[in-house]
Amino acid sequence: MEKVIRLAHGAGGQMMAELIRGLLLPPLDNPWLRQMADAALLEVGGARLALSTDSFVVRPLFFPGGDIGSLAVHGTVNDLAMVGARPLYLTAGLILEEGLELEVLERVVASMARAARTAGVLVVAGDTKVVERGHGDGLYINTTGVGVVPAGVEVGPERGRPGDIVLLSGTIGDHGIAVLSQREGLGFETVLQSDSAPLHTLVEALLRAAPHTHTLRDPTRGGLAAALNELASASGVGIELDEAAIPVRPAVRAACEMLGFDPLDVANEGKLVAFVPPEEAKAALEALRAHPLGREASRIGFLTAEHPGLVLARTPIGGRRVVNMPPGELLPRIC
Amino acid sequence: MEKVIRLAHGAGGQMMAELIRGLLLPPLDNPWLRQMADAALLEVGGARLALSTDSFVVRPLFFPGGDIGSLAVHGTVNDLAMVGARPLYLTAGLILEEGLELEVLERVVASMARAARTAGVLVVAGDTKVVERGHGDGLYINTTGVGVVPAGVEVGPERGRPGDIVLLSGTIGDHGIAVLSQREGLGFETVLQSDSAPLHTLVEALLRAAPHTHTLRDPTRGGLAAALNELASASGVGIELDEAAIPVRPAVRAACEMLGFDPLDVANEGKLVAFVPPEEAKAALEALRAHPLGREASRIGFLTAEHPGLVLARTPIGGRRVVNMPPGELLPRIC
Repeated sequence: MEKVIRLAHGAGGQMMAELIRGLLLPPLDNPWLRQMADAALLEVGGARLALSTDSFVVRPLFFPGGDIGSLAVHGTVNDLAMVGARPLYLTAGLILEEGLELEVLERVVASMARAARTAGVLVVAGDTKVVERGHGDGLYINTTGVGVVPAGVEVGPERGRPGDIVLLSGTIGDHGIAVLSQREGLGFETVLQSDSAPLHTLVEALLRAAPHTHTLRDPTRGGLAAALNELASASGVGIELDEAAIPVRPAVRAACEMLGFDPLDVANEGKLVAFVPPEEAKAALEALRAHPLGREASRIGFLTAEHPGLVLARTPIGGRRVVNMPPGELLPRIC
Repeated sequence: MEKVIRLAHGAGGQMMAELIRGLLLPPLDNPWLRQMADAALLEVGGARLALSTDSFVVRPLFFPGGDIGSLAVHGTVNDLAMVGARPLYLTAGLILEEGLELEVLERVVASMARAARTAGVLVVAGDTKVVERGHGDGLYINTTGVGVVPAGVEVGPERGRPGDIVLLSGTIGDHGIAVLSQREGLGFETVLQSDSAPLHTLVEALLRAAPHTHTLRDPTRGGLAAALNELASASGVGIELDEAAIPVRPAVRAACEMLGFDPLDVANEGKLVAFVPPEEAKAALEALRAHPLGREASRIGFLTAEHPGLVLARTPIGGRRVVNMPPGELLPRIC
C-alpha cells in the first residue's frame, strides 16, 4: 500500500475502495458503515431514517449545467433517494479560503437555496470555517442529509438477485466530461451540460411502478463501472451488460475517445441504475421513461448467479469484456 | 462590508456573525436556521431529532489533550448535547490533501473511533475526497450528528429569563491557548491541555438536577464572550457577570496577558454555560460539581431585564465593563 494519500484515493475507483476498506473502516467498524450503502438506515424513535454525508470539492466551482452549490444539494438528495428515502433536511458545512470573493459565495449559496427549494428540502443547520490562502480552493461544501424511508420500501446494495433486470435512467458520462472540459478549456464544439439533478421523484415513480425493486445506485465518482462492480460484490451476483444498450451522447463518446477514457468510468450526477425483478421490469422502464429525468432510460443487462462479483459486457462488435473497477487515476475533483 | 473572505470571518466573532446573518442565511432562510441554535430540532416520523454539523480545520492536527479526530467527535456530540439531545449517530466527511501520510490518517481515525466509543455514538456514514497538494492542509473533517431529545426537555438559546442564574462548568480558554501554543511553539513552562471532551453526560446530570434549565451553550470559537452575547440577543435579556467568579488557569491567564487576549474570547471545547432558574441553581451547581467534567463549575452571573442584549461584567477591581462580541481577528483555525 502507498504510504501517502494520492489523488487516486479520492477518485471513486479501486484505490479509494482499498483506502476505505483497509484503513478507514476497520477502527470505526459497525454494520451500517460496513454495508457501504449510499445512506445509512437507522431506526430512531420509531422512525426509519436515512442519513448520508458528502463533501464537494469540484473544480471549477461553476460548470455548464451546475455549480458546487446545486451539486452539493443534488448529491446528498440523491444518496438519500438511493435507499428509497424521501429527503427532508440538509446541513451545510462550508470551508472557505481566505480571499474568496463574497460575490462568488453569494452565487453559490443562492444556487444551493434554489436547488433545495426545487428538491423540497430545507437546509436546517450550517457551519462556516475559514482557512488561510493556499490551504483551500475557494470553497468546499459538506452536505449531510436526513430522509424518511416509507414503510414497505426495502432497497439496498446487497439485495440484487440473479435474474434481476439492470435498468439505467439515461446517458452516462455527461457530468464528468462537462466538468473536465470546463476545467481544461477543452472547447468541444457542443457545450456539454452536467446532468446534475435531484433524483428522488424519479425514484418515487420507479418504486410506485416496481415496488419490489431490489437495488438503486447513482453512478457518481468512478461512473457506472464502479457502481456496478460495488453492487455485484455487495449482492454476490454477476452482471451481464449489453454495452450497445448503454446510452452515451455522441459528444461524450468523442471526448472520451480523444482523452482515452471509458465512458463507463466517468461520473454522473443525475442518473440511477436499478436492479428490478423481471416481472416488474417493463413497468419500471415505462415509469422511468415517463419522468423528465428518465426519458432515455434503457434496459442494459441482467444479474446472474454465474461469475459472482464480476461485471461482463457484450461489446457492440460481439465480443465480451470484463468491466473492471476503474483504477482511479483519471478524474480528480469531479464532485 | 468586505468584498472577500478574511480569516476573521471564521473566528466566531462579530465578522462571522455578520457574514452569516448578512450573506449566508437570507437565501436559505427558515425557522431552524434563523434560530441559530447549536443543533436544529426536527420532528421526524414522531421522533424529536436534533441535527448538527461542524467542520474541523484545526492546525496543527495534533495538540496537547487531543487531535482533529477526537475534536471532531466531541464538537458535534457537544452541539447535540446543548439542545438537550442524547447523541446517537455521526457522519464523517474527510477532505484529504494529496501527500498526507497514511500513518497520520490512521492515527486520526483511531482517535475518532476511540472518542466515538467513549461517547457512545456510532459513525454510520462517511465520505472521502482528495484535493491536490497545496489545496488543503493535510486533513479537514466534517462531522454531522443526529440525536434524540427526550420528552420534556426544552432548552434553547431564546429561553433565558431575567433572574436566571448563569453557571459555567469550569475553567475557560484551555483549548484555544493549548492549540495556539502548540502551533506557534510558544513553549510555556506548563504544558496546557485542551479541555476537549464530550459533554452529554454532564448535560444529563444537569438536567436531572435542574429539569427547568432554560439554555445551554458550549463556548467554542469566540469563547465565553461570543456565547454570552449570542444568548443575550437570542433571549432578549441582559447578562451581569462577576468576572472574579470565572475560573481561569494561571497558565492561561499568563499566556493571555502575554499575547494580549482576553480569556473570555478564547475557545473552549469541553465547557458549557447554562441559564438555570434561581430555584434550581443550587441543585444544578452541585450536579455539575459532582461530575468529573464539572468539578470547577461556578456561578458566574445572572440574567436581567435591564440592558437586553448587553453583557456587563463586574471586574475584580470593582469596576464595570461591557463584554463585547470578539471582533474575530485573533485565533484562526482553532477548531
